[in-house]
Amino acid sequence: MLTNSRTLRIEWSDCDPAGIVYYPRYFAMFDTSTTSLFELALGMPAAQLFKAYGVVGYPLVEARARFIKPIQFSDDVTIKTTVTEFGRTSFKMQHCLSKKGELAVEAFETRVWVVRHPDDRERLKSQLIPKELIARFNVE
Amino acid sequence: MLTNSRTLRIEWSDCDPAGIVYYPRYFAMFDTSTTSLFELALGMPAAQLFKAYGVVGYPLVEARARFIKPIQFSDDVTIKTTVTEFGRTSFKMQHCLSKKGELAVEAFETRVWVVRHPDDRERLKSQLIPKELIARFNVE
Amino acid sequence: MLTNSRTLRIEWSDCDPAGIVYYPRYFAMFDTSTTSLFELALGMPAAQLFKAYGVVGYPLVEARARFIKPIQFSDDVTIKTTVTEFGRTSFKMQHCLSKKGELAVEAFETRVWVVRHPDDRERLKSQLIPKELIARFNVE
Amino acid sequence: MLTNSRTLRIEWSDCDPAGIVYYPRYFAMFDTSTTSLFELALGMPAAQLFKAYGVVGYPLVEARARFIKPIQFSDDVTIKTTVTEFGRTSFKMQHCLSKKGELAVEAFETRVWVVRHPDDRERLKSQLIPKELIARFNVE
Repeated sequence: MLTNSRTLRIEWSDCDPAGIVYYPRYFAMFDTSTTSLFELALGMPAAQLFKAYGVVGYPLVEARARFIKPIQFSDDVTIKTTVTEFGRTSFKMQHCLSKKGELAVEAFETRVWVVRHPDDRERLKSQLIPKELIARFNVE
Repeated sequence: MLTNSRTLRIEWSDCDPAGIVYYPRYFAMFDTSTTSLFELALGMPAAQLFKAYGVVGYPLVEARARFIKPIQFSDDVTIKTTVTEFGRTSFKMQHCLSKKGELAVEAFETRVWVVRHPDDRERLKSQLIPKELIARFNVE
Repeated sequence: MLTNSRTLRIEWSDCDPAGIVYYPRYFAMFDTSTTSLFELALGMPAAQLFKAYGVVGYPLVEARARFIKPIQFSDDVTIKTTVTEFGRTSFKMQHCLSKKGELAVEAFETRVWVVRHPDDRERLKSQLIPKELIARFNVE
Repeated sequence: MLTNSRTLRIEWSDCDPAGIVYYPRYFAMFDTSTTSLFELALGMPAAQLFKAYGVVGYPLVEARARFIKPIQFSDDVTIKTTVTEFGRTSFKMQHCLSKKGELAVEAFETRVWVVRHPDDRERLKSQLIPKELIARFNVE
């Protein structure tokens, strides 16, 4: 199972007046990790990948997170991200954020592979995920 | 059951290159709605409320959301927010975001009532939620 | 000179670990005020306005701000926004954010009226600002 | 003159519906670069540095930016950051963001070294910047 792992330092912009990460920021971190995983799998920057596959992106249909330990300004954390399951037009992801080896936040997402609607460029519609793309993720 | 309802216009800053609301922004909207509900219940601005009760805030321990319909720039949406259950030190919330009467995003959160740890101001610890505060929310 | 004035409460999501507004947030507030001013001038939501005029938006070419007084969580502030000058394809704006009548932040921006480049939809190009649109702002 | 240089990929969360970086995001990037420069100069994470010097941070009193070229999703950019001048309690910074060697955004900031007010922990007050800290930045 292909895994993206990245380490980042928590910045001032991530934190709230309680001095801990403001929780919507975790979702932005997980979104960036999703992009990094796709870049790792396909070997190209996401903008190029979206163009190559004719997609607009992979918006969320469901997200779920447990916030186990608070994370503070200047903490170094590691985020490990995998696709755990591919459906026809959607896929499931798991993100584990840890600090010094201890799990601090765990998230599960379901995302859809979408293109612009042929009849109305403002609408989005789901699209079959190409088999050769799925193959790159080594999902069991 | 006390409900906070607010209507807002989706701004440029809420949207991503696909032209729809960037999903971490929904959580920030729900956080603001949480604050508005507490302000409604207690009849004072949140900063004053936090001081009156000696708390630092109500960070998340769990969040879950379903994104049912995409929302776009300039859409007017309504967010209805309630506390569905109070525990000793935590509480559960529900947020329903709708557009033209149709549900677009639904979220469920568990939050904890926290104070600064007496021995270490940088740590947070959970605290009993005052009974008279709970009474203001009319939770069944 | 047409002025947009709006009052908002500073939210938890606007503030940093020092307990004051995180300065990039002021620019997002001013951007929303810019949109509100255009909506006031043209009498329609911005998304509709952009479509009616065939523009993508009004990105910045220059921004300048003075942060005179810190603003905190739960503060109520007023933002007054005007276009101070229209050029052929660009315009200058002023934003004044005050608390209890005292100026706290003042910003000056230059923005350009842009469309998608006809030869390459990914590039943007500046466009003449329509005279009838300018007329709605009552700039001296 | 000590310079912090960092390269980053522009993420989905940085971009707006026009497909370019939403300008308030540039200021957040410059704030992170400021922190990185201080960490480079002092050889410790910013949270530790703030504690060692008893400061709350270095909020802005003035910011100015020129947006020369738009930057898009997946672009790799380099940000070079320096302190150009130290005053008694304030300092001036310059940030240059470039793409493929071409300057895209240039910003100038004035920031103040602040502590909590001894009489009122909610207020901030400026403080003399220690000489030995200044020495680490090699400002001419």
